[in-house]
Amino acid sequence: MATESVTIKDIAKLLGISKSTVSRALSEHSDVNQETRRRVLEIAQKLNYQPNVLALNLKQQRTHTLGVIIPETVNRFFAKAIGGIQKIANLAGYHVMICQSDESYVAERKNLQGLLASRVDGILVSVSSETDRTDHFDMLLQKNVPLVFFDRILEDVKASQVYTDNYEISFEGTEHLISQGCKRIAIVAGPQNLYNSRNRLMGYIDALKKHNLPVKDNYIIHSYFRGGNVEEYTRHLINLPQRPDAIFAINDYAAIEMMHVIKKNGLRVPDDIAILGFNNEAICRFVEPALSSIDHSAFDMGTAAAEILLNKIETGNLEPERRMIKSRLVIRESTHVRSV
Amino acid sequence: MATESVTIKDIAKLLGISKSTVSRALSEHSDVNQETRRRVLEIAQKLNYQPNVLALNLKQQRTHTLGVIIPETVNRFFAKAIGGIQKIANLAGYHVMICQSDESYVAERKNLQGLLASRVDGILVSVSSETDRTDHFDMLLQKNVPLVFFDRILEDVKASQVYTDNYEISFEGTEHLISQGCKRIAIVAGPQNLYNSRNRLMGYIDALKKHNLPVKDNYIIHSYFRGGNVEEYTRHLINLPQRPDAIFAINDYAAIEMMHVIKKNGLRVPDDIAILGFNNEAICRFVEPALSSIDHSAFDMGTAAAEILLNKIETGNLEPERRMIKSRLVIRESTHVRSV
Repeated sequence: MATESVTIKDIAKLLGISKSTVSRALSEHSDVNQETRRRVLEIAQKLNYQPNVLALNLKQQRTHTLGVIIPETVNRFFAKAIGGIQKIANLAGYHVMICQSDESYVAERKNLQGLLASRVDGILVSVSSETDRTDHFDMLLQKNVPLVFFDRILEDVKASQVYTDNYEISFEGTEHLISQGCKRIAIVAGPQNLYNSRNRLMGYIDALKKHNLPVKDNYIIHSYFRGGNVEEYTRHLINLPQRPDAIFAINDYAAIEMMHVIKKNGLRVPDDIAILGFNNEAICRFVEPALSSIDHSAFDMGTAAAEILLNKIETGNLEPERRMIKSRLVIRESTHVRSV
Repeated sequence: MATESVTIKDIAKLLGISKSTVSRALSEHSDVNQETRRRVLEIAQKLNYQPNVLALNLKQQRTHTLGVIIPETVNRFFAKAIGGIQKIANLAGYHVMICQSDESYVAERKNLQGLLASRVDGILVSVSSETDRTDHFDMLLQKNVPLVFFDRILEDVKASQVYTDNYEISFEGTEHLISQGCKRIAIVAGPQNLYNSRNRLMGYIDALKKHNLPVKDNYIIHSYFRGGNVEEYTRHLINLPQRPDAIFAINDYAAIEMMHVIKKNGLRVPDDIAILGFNNEAICRFVEPALSSIDHSAFDMGTAAAEILLNKIETGNLEPERRMIKSRLVIRESTHVRSV
């Protein structure tokens, strides 16, 4: 590819002028004759000249690239967050280099090293569900690389953090189920090394306690975000001697599969078991019964995280910043229960 | 960030040896004393030395980065394809730089220029639904940049292409609806400047013709992949004087929304109107009725495209290659009709 690229030398040769004149004309130095500059720009455009960015970047030590590490693009939450990041990056003239950790600490660490070796100007991360150490990020901070966590944050790392009010919204969701007359509320909790998952579980527990409802271990399922075991744990829950009358799901897709399993087993949603999802996907409105959920603005989280990162890069001020994006309970039929 | 990085100069200074000795030790030149090399490597590791990849890359004119342009990550098909691309790239030690065109020709062109300026080693593209010109890709080929299209290909561009049998599977899907007794089959067709969408529509038309069913303009809806107008065109179809008895949807999400609109209007799926989706998302199994669909392996397309691209980069042989990934009809309740 390099051998085929048009260089400053080629342009100089064609116009019979020096390389440095071409270079100065392209960088708009004022000491180049107006007519010469016009000719240089004309031929550069004609030949589709691309400045050698590697050389330019080496000089400036800037690549105008943001690195992003997310667990996976097939998780719609992260796909939407990328939309937000990309929007802000495009506006600022930055590229976005996205890597997937596939929910693995080892891959996340590798991604980080890769991005660092490529000298991205800053990094946005939503950590993998396996990540229970911070060494790889500490290394990044030692190098003064701007770093912003979003959604799945690591509160112990001294970096900027964009997060949502997981505790509060989980408390509110649980109280909503209680207000519908549910007394045996189960929850599908995410990996407890994740800050978000811990907070969601705490919000659920504290809401039960506030209303004097018992917190039972067998109503707390520990799962992952990917699904794959939804049918299994749903069967487990509906076969408990004291069957739950509500389940707070880990996300909407799991909730929809749960409703399917519950109905297949001859039970009704919400009358026998109310279901509350998480993420408020568009599809919540089209399933039966329509799924109540937590609206959790992934796009806004992406834009906020990218804005903070760009500010860090441009100003060089790496003082950690925290920004909270509020979530919102959306009530539909799947939790609209009963003759209390 | 640059000022904080450990350089070869720092290591040389600390060990009291020359920069060139450090450089040769790090690149494993055989003319460096064993003990010196050991000390250099030890201190390099201790100080977390990262070779300046920009400088290295400039020398090699290789960035070990694959550029990917997709319409959007929130489209699950592309999110899954990225999973496949990333898997192959990781195995080969390449980074993946993903850009979104947001279904816009202008943004796609900009992405391409950005990736080119960053000197990626090759580019994978699934074109935007707006793209009806090839000039930006022709420019790429003139520069001998390895280019592979996947899924949404541009057949007129002399680059490698990974695609699916859209015509055949659309023909098969339509024949399946006919075999269920449907005689008034509507289709929601994608943007006709896309090769895939044209082929799907042709497969539908040819299947109708084969079975002597009329091809009616008002049964052919032109839409986009994003949704947003599903309710509108579904209402339009069900209010036609001769209501369709089957609809071949543009994708599963649109199909699920369609079923919702149809049922809200007091009609039954599949008895009044059969619905066939596209993409075979996991959720097809959990909606009611379970949605028939076309299994269209996004992940396999991603791996195939990445394999071809890496081969082009490594061998330098840019001869266009074509690879077809077969699709498969998956029949469930939404098309399992009737007492024929």
